[in-house]
Amino acid sequence: MQAENLGVDKELFEYVAESVTQSPFYNLIGVSHISLGPGSAEMIVTAGRQHTNPVDLVHGGLIMSIADAAMANSVRSMGVRPVTVDCSTSFLASAEFGKDIITRGKVIKRGKNLLFAEADVWSEGILIATAKATFFNIGDIKV
Amino acid sequence: MQAENLGVDKELFEYVAESVTQSPFYNLIGVSHISLGPGSAEMIVTAGRQHTNPVDLVHGGLIMSIADAAMANSVRSMGVRPVTVDCSTSFLASAEFGKDIITRGKVIKRGKNLLFAEADVWSEGILIATAKATFFNIGDIKV
Amino acid sequence: MQAENLGVDKELFEYVAESVTQSPFYNLIGVSHISLGPGSAEMIVTAGRQHTNPVDLVHGGLIMSIADAAMANSVRSMGVRPVTVDCSTSFLASAEFGKDIITRGKVIKRGKNLLFAEADVWSEGILIATAKATFFNIGDIKV
Amino acid sequence: MQAENLGVDKELFEYVAESVTQSPFYNLIGVSHISLGPGSAEMIVTAGRQHTNPVDLVHGGLIMSIADAAMANSVRSMGVRPVTVDCSTSFLASAEFGKDIITRGKVIKRGKNLLFAEADVWSEGILIATAKATFFNIGDIKV
Repeated sequence: MQAENLGVDKELFEYVAESVTQSPFYNLIGVSHISLGPGSAEMIVTAGRQHTNPVDLVHGGLIMSIADAAMANSVRSMGVRPVTVDCSTSFLASAEFGKDIITRGKVIKRGKNLLFAEADVWSEGILIATAKATFFNIGDIKV
Repeated sequence: MQAENLGVDKELFEYVAESVTQSPFYNLIGVSHISLGPGSAEMIVTAGRQHTNPVDLVHGGLIMSIADAAMANSVRSMGVRPVTVDCSTSFLASAEFGKDIITRGKVIKRGKNLLFAEADVWSEGILIATAKATFFNIGDIKV
Repeated sequence: MQAENLGVDKELFEYVAESVTQSPFYNLIGVSHISLGPGSAEMIVTAGRQHTNPVDLVHGGLIMSIADAAMANSVRSMGVRPVTVDCSTSFLASAEFGKDIITRGKVIKRGKNLLFAEADVWSEGILIATAKATFFNIGDIKV
Repeated sequence: MQAENLGVDKELFEYVAESVTQSPFYNLIGVSHISLGPGSAEMIVTAGRQHTNPVDLVHGGLIMSIADAAMANSVRSMGVRPVTVDCSTSFLASAEFGKDIITRGKVIKRGKNLLFAEADVWSEGILIATAKATFFNIGDIKV
C-alpha cells in the first residue's frame, strides 16, 4: 500500500514512508502505513491467525507494537528521530483475527528534548486500545 | 527448548508450557519459555535482524511483547486465565540484534479480580526495560 | 463554587457534587468541581504557594491528584462507584503558582467491571499534563 | 523527624533533607523524610482524616504524591535536579487513615538525560501501591 501524504514536506514524507516499508520488525508483524500528516500517522495491520494467542484473540503485543509504531511515526513526521522512553497501553476490548486493526498516533507536545504522543487503536469500528508514549529526540532527520 | 518447572503443579505447568509453544504470536516473534515457577515466568527471544528497526536496533514492540508474555505467564502459573488491562513499559537502554533478550515476570499481587505483575528485560547483562501490567481474571485454568 | 450540571440525572448530580464538596482530601488540596456531564467532569484548583516545590513550581502530586479526581468523577457521573486501579500521568510543561489549573476527565470505555478514562490538565491555556486511568466498578451509586 | 543518611555525601544529604523539610506541598500533605541513600529515598506520611475520600479510605492522590516524592528524592540523592516526565501508579490495596504510609523509591537507571525510578508503597505491612517514574535531568545540584 502506498501511504498518503497529508501535508508533510515531500522529502521528509518519502524518507519516513520508505523507512516504514523497510523496517524489518514492521514487516515481520505485518504493519504498514496508511497516512502521514504533520504530527500524525495512521498505521494498519490485517490481523491473521499468526497474531493470535491460543484462545484465538489478537495478542496484546501486536496492539502495543502498532500503537508505538503510529506514535513514533507521528514524531518522525516532524523531522525528529525518536527513541521510545515510556509507553503505556490500556486494553479496552479484545480483537479477533481476520479483521483490520487501525491506529492513529498524534504528537500532543513537541519539546526540545522530549515529545509526547497518543494513539487510539480500532478494529471494526470499536476502540480496542489507547496508548500514550514519551519519546526522546536523538536528532533531526536529514533528508 | 524445554521449559523448566520451578515448582508449579505438574499438570498446570504442562498446560502453560504447551500453550506457550503453540501460541501463534509467540512463534511469529520467536518468543519461548525458559522457566515457570509459582507466580513467575522467564521468557527468551534471540533478537535477529527481523526484530530491528531501520537503524538496526531491536524494536520496542518486541520488548513490550516479551515483557507482557512473561507477566501473563506468571499469572497463568497461578492457575488464572488473564487478559491484559494495562501495560506500561520504560525503555532504559537500546538492544542490538544477535543477542538473547531475557525477561522475568512475577506476580506482585493476586486479587480476586485483578492481578498485578512486573517484569525486567535484560540483554547481555544490561537491564534494557522494566514493565508493569494489570490483568483481569477471566476464570480458572482447567487442567 | 456551585458545580454545573451538563446533563446528569439530578439526584446523581447532587450526590456527586456533594461528595466532592465533602471530600477531605479535595478540601486539603483545594480541588473543586466546575461541571459534571454524562461521562465527564471538570475540576479546578487555584495553585498557591502551598502547592509548590522548593523551586516555586507546582508539585506533580497536585497535578496527578486533580487529574485522578476528574477521571474518578467522570466515572461517578455514570452512577458507578470507582476505585482507581492504574493511573499514568505525563508531564508536558511546568505550572506556576498563582494561576488556575483546570482538568477535564472523560470516560472512554465503560465495561461491566472496568472503566477507562482520560484527562487533560491545563494552566493559562497551556496543556501541562495528560493522564489515563483504569477504574474498577465496586457497585452502583444509590441515590 | 530527622532523616537518616544512608551513605550520601554530607552536604548533598543536608541540601536534600532541608529541601524536603521546606517543600510547601510536602508540608501541606504531611510528607516527611525517613532516610536518603545513594539512589534511594524513604518517605512517610501518617494518613489522617484529611487524606481520605468520602468513603473513609486514603485518597489515591496522596499515594501518587508520596511515591513521586520518594522517587524524585532518590534521584536528588545522586546530585541530580529532576523534573518528572512520566509517572505510573498501580493501586494494589486500599489504605485506611490512622496508619502510617511508607514508601521506598530507588533509581534503577541513571542516564545522562533521563533517570528511571521505582517505588513501593506500604501500609501496615501490606503493599498498597507500586509506581515507576521517569525524570529528566535539568542540572546538577550545587552544594
